Amino acid sequence: MAEKPTNARGTRDFGPEVVLRRRYLQQTLQQAFERYGYRPIETPALENLKVLEGKYGEEGDRLLFRILNSGDYLKDASLAQLAALAPEAQHRALLPHITEKALRYDLTVPFARYVVQHQHTLTLPFKRYQMQPVWRADRPQKGRYREFVQCDADVVGSRSLVHEVEFVQLYAEVFTALGLRVTLQVNHRKVLTGMAEVIGAPERVVDFTVALDKLDKIGEAGVLAELAQRGFTEAQCQAATAFFALQGSVETALAGLEAAFRGRSETGLAGVAELRQLVAWVAPLPLGTATLALNVTLARGLNYYTGCIFEVKSDEVTLGSIGGGGRYDDLTGLFGLPGLSGAGISFGLDRIYDVVDELGRWPTHLATYPVAVLVANFGEAYYPTAFALVRALRAAGHSAELYPEPKKLAKQLEYANKCGIPYVLLYGEAEANHQEVIVKVLATGNQVRVPLAEMLSGKGLVSLPAA
Amino acid sequence: MAEKPTNARGTRDFGPEVVLRRRYLQQTLQQAFERYGYRPIETPALENLKVLEGKYGEEGDRLLFRILNSGDYLKDASLAQLAALAPEAQHRALLPHITEKALRYDLTVPFARYVVQHQHTLTLPFKRYQMQPVWRADRPQKGRYREFVQCDADVVGSRSLVHEVEFVQLYAEVFTALGLRVTLQVNHRKVLTGMAEVIGAPERVVDFTVALDKLDKIGEAGVLAELAQRGFTEAQCQAATAFFALQGSVETALAGLEAAFRGRSETGLAGVAELRQLVAWVAPLPLGTATLALNVTLARGLNYYTGCIFEVKSDEVTLGSIGGGGRYDDLTGLFGLPGLSGAGISFGLDRIYDVVDELGRWPTHLATYPVAVLVANFGEAYYPTAFALVRALRAAGHSAELYPEPKKLAKQLEYANKCGIPYVLLYGEAEANHQEVIVKVLATGNQVRVPLAEMLSGKGLVSLPAA
Repeated sequence: MAEKPTNARGTRDFGPEVVLRRRYLQQTLQQAFERYGYRPIETPALENLKVLEGKYGEEGDRLLFRILNSGDYLKDASLAQLAALAPEAQHRALLPHITEKALRYDLTVPFARYVVQHQHTLTLPFKRYQMQPVWRADRPQKGRYREFVQCDADVVGSRSLVHEVEFVQLYAEVFTALGLRVTLQVNHRKVLTGMAEVIGAPERVVDFTVALDKLDKIGEAGVLAELAQRGFTEAQCQAATAFFALQGSVETALAGLEAAFRGRSETGLAGVAELRQLVAWVAPLPLGTATLALNVTLARGLNYYTGCIFEVKSDEVTLGSIGGGGRYDDLTGLFGLPGLSGAGISFGLDRIYDVVDELGRWPTHLATYPVAVLVANFGEAYYPTAFALVRALRAAGHSAELYPEPKKLAKQLEYANKCGIPYVLLYGEAEANHQEVIVKVLATGNQVRVPLAEMLSGKGLVSLPAA
Repeated sequence: MAEKPTNARGTRDFGPEVVLRRRYLQQTLQQAFERYGYRPIETPALENLKVLEGKYGEEGDRLLFRILNSGDYLKDASLAQLAALAPEAQHRALLPHITEKALRYDLTVPFARYVVQHQHTLTLPFKRYQMQPVWRADRPQKGRYREFVQCDADVVGSRSLVHEVEFVQLYAEVFTALGLRVTLQVNHRKVLTGMAEVIGAPERVVDFTVALDKLDKIGEAGVLAELAQRGFTEAQCQAATAFFALQGSVETALAGLEAAFRGRSETGLAGVAELRQLVAWVAPLPLGTATLALNVTLARGLNYYTGCIFEVKSDEVTLGSIGGGGRYDDLTGLFGLPGLSGAGISFGLDRIYDVVDELGRWPTHLATYPVAVLVANFGEAYYPTAFALVRALRAAGHSAELYPEPKKLAKQLEYANKCGIPYVLLYGEAEANHQEVIVKVLATGNQVRVPLAEMLSGKGLVSLPAA
C-alpha cells in the first residue's frame, strides 16, 4: 500500500465547515473595505525575485519560498567553480543561477509594484484592498502557518491623517462586527526616532527599535540586555528605561513623551503632535468593542514605516497580533517612483479565525448546511421524475440533490442526517401511483404530502413545516 | 532610477474592474455548485512532491513549479558526484536533493489526497467544489497562463451515472446563466478502448488516444502521420480512419460505434451503452444555451479517466476548451485507498473570462462602481462633522469616503468622476451656517439641500434624486 499522503509542513486543508467560516470572515472584511471606499485588486502568487528581495530585511529574504527555474535549471551554473567554494558558501553562490521567482511574502510590496507598474491608469489617491494568501518559510507553530491569508487595505498618493483615522474606524468596525474585544495599539515612527535621539543614539534608531519591539516578549531586563548586546552604552540603556514606563492612558503617555522630547527632539515632538491629532479626531467616533491605546515600544520590525504604526491584539485570547500596519512615505521609491506617500493596515485572517474559534463566536447561521433537500433514490424507473424534481427545486433557488444509488431508505436518510440536509423527498411506487411527493422533515420526523405537479412547479417547498 | 518592475512571466495583475468581473463569474459558479449540493473545500498551494509527481505524465512533471528547499538546500547534495555526470544529466540528478515541494498543478490530485487523508471523517458519497489557482510552467500564450483559476466539482464514493447527468446540467446551467453558447462534448474511455481493440492494438490505447485527441488541431492526415510515427501499422491506421467520420448527431455516431464494436469489443459496447443511457436521461432536461454532442476522438490526455469524458467549447469564440472532466475509477488508489470511484468536472475561469470579455457579455450592474458617496473636504475645521457624516452613511450601508485633502472642489469632483462615484456631499462654511448638507449628483449636476441632522441620522440618502 502507498504511504499515506500528508500536507506539506505548515500548510492545512480546509473542509466545508471551515471554508464557510473563513468565507464569513472574508465577507465581513470585504463589506467593510467597500463601505470605506477601498477597491479590490489581485496580484499573482509568483513574483520576480527582483521585486521581493531586499524588501523584508535579511530575515525576510531567508523566509522567501523560491521557485526553481524550469527545465535545465543548472545550465547557467558552473559546478566546477561552485565546488571550489567552501561548502557553506555554495548554496548562496548557486542561488542566483537557479531561481528567479518566489512566492509573495506579503501584499504590501506587490501593491507597491502594482502602483508603479500601473501608475498611468490609476486615479490618485488610490485606495485598494486585497485578500490573498502569502507564504513564508517560517518554523510552523501555534498561530503561525507557512501559507496564510492577509487582508489588506492601503491608500497611496495622500499624506492626509484622514486615512489613519479611517484605519482606526475600520479596525473597530470589523472587530465589533465579529464580536471580538481588541486593543488597537498605536505608535509613531517619529516617536521611535525621538527616543533614539534622546538616548543619544540618533543614527541607531533601527537597532534601538528592534530591541524595544521585544518588550512584550522578553520584558524590561531582556530589552536592556539586548540593547547592551547591540553595543548601546550603559548610559543609553539607562536613558531608555524612562520610556518603558510610558504605557497607560494615551493622554498620560503622550504628555510623558512630550516632556522627554521638549528641547531634545523636534522629530519626536512632531510624532507626538500627529498622534495627538489622531486621538482627538477619533475620540468622538464610537469604536464598539475596540479600544485605542498608545504603545510607545511598538515598532513592528519593518523599516519602511515613517508615520503612525498600528498593531491589533485580542483582549480575550493570547495569540500575537491579529492585525497591523502603518504609514510608509516612500515604498514605491524602491521601484523608481519616489514621493508617493502610502499607508495601510492588514488583517491576519488565519489568526482572527483562531480567536473567533477559541471563543466560540461563530454566528449560528453558519451551522446550517446549505443543501436543503435530498431526493431519495428508488431506482432508475423513477429517475426521469427525480431529475425533474431536483431541477425544479434548484430553479426555485433551493439546494437539492438526488441520492445517487437506490440504496435502502435508512441508508439514504443517514446520509442526509450526517450532511445536515433538513428535507428528504420521497417519490417511489406508492407516490407515483398517487402523483404526489412525500416531504420528510428529518429534525422532527414529520411528513407532508404534496401533489407532484405542485412540487414540479417549484412552489412545493413554500408551505413546508419548518426544519 | 530603479528598473521598472514587471510581473513574473505568464502571470497577471487584476485591477478593480477585472476583480469584480472575476468575482461575478466565481459567484455564478459557487451558487450553481451549492444548488447542486457540492460543498466547498480548500487545499494549500504547496503540496509535497510525492503527492504531485507521476500523476500528470512526463509532461506534467516537467511543468511543475518546484520550490527550492529552505536554508542550505545543497547540504544533502554531493557536488563532486554531480560534476562527474554528463552536463545534461546533472539537473535531473540534483533535483531530488534540493526540492521536496511544488505548487499544485490541478485540483483533482489534491482532492484525491484530501479524500484519503480525511477518509474517516467524510460522509460518502462526498461531493465537493473547489475554486483555487493552479500553476503550470507552460509557455504563455493567448488563453494560456502560468497561474490560473480552476473551479471544480467532484464526487467520490459513487459509481452512479446520476453524477454524469448532473455534470451536463451543471455545465448547461452555468453557461446559460453567463449567456454563452457552448457545446458539451462527451465521449467514453471504454469507447476509446473499444476503438483500440477494433484496430487490433488493444494494449496501446494510451498511444492511440493521445494521437486521436489531436484530430481537432492537426486534422486526419496529421493524426494518421502521428499514429504511423508511434509505430501503428498501416492496417491499424487504415482501420482508425473509420472512426474519424463518426462526428455528427449523437444518435448516428452511437449507432456507428455500436456497429463497429459488435462482436469485436465488449468494452466498447459497454461504453456505448453508458453514453446512450446518459443521453436518454439528459434528453428531457432543458440545457439552455448548451448543446450536448458526441466526439469520439475526445480523450483529454489524462490517463486516469475510466468512464465518461467531457469537454466544453465555446460556439462563439475559438479558444480551446473552457471546461472538462470525467470519471476516474481509482484516483485515490494512487494514495493507498483503492476502490473509490470518482467523477468530476472543471471550469476554466480565466478562459471563460476571456470568452465573456470578447463577446462583451458582462452584466451591466458590474459597470457601477460600488463607492456611492464622496464627502468633499473643506479643511480640518469641518473634519469632526465630515467624519460623522461618513460614519452615518456607512452605518446605513452605503459606501462612503472623505476626500483626504482640502484641495480645490473641482479637483475633488474630478476624483469622484474618474472613480465613478455618483454622489458628492458638500459641507463647508455656508452649509455649516445653515446646518445643512448639499448633495450633488454628478451625472446630472443637480443639487439637493438636506438638513444636517437628517443626513447624520442615516436617512439622508433615502429621498435623493437618481444618480
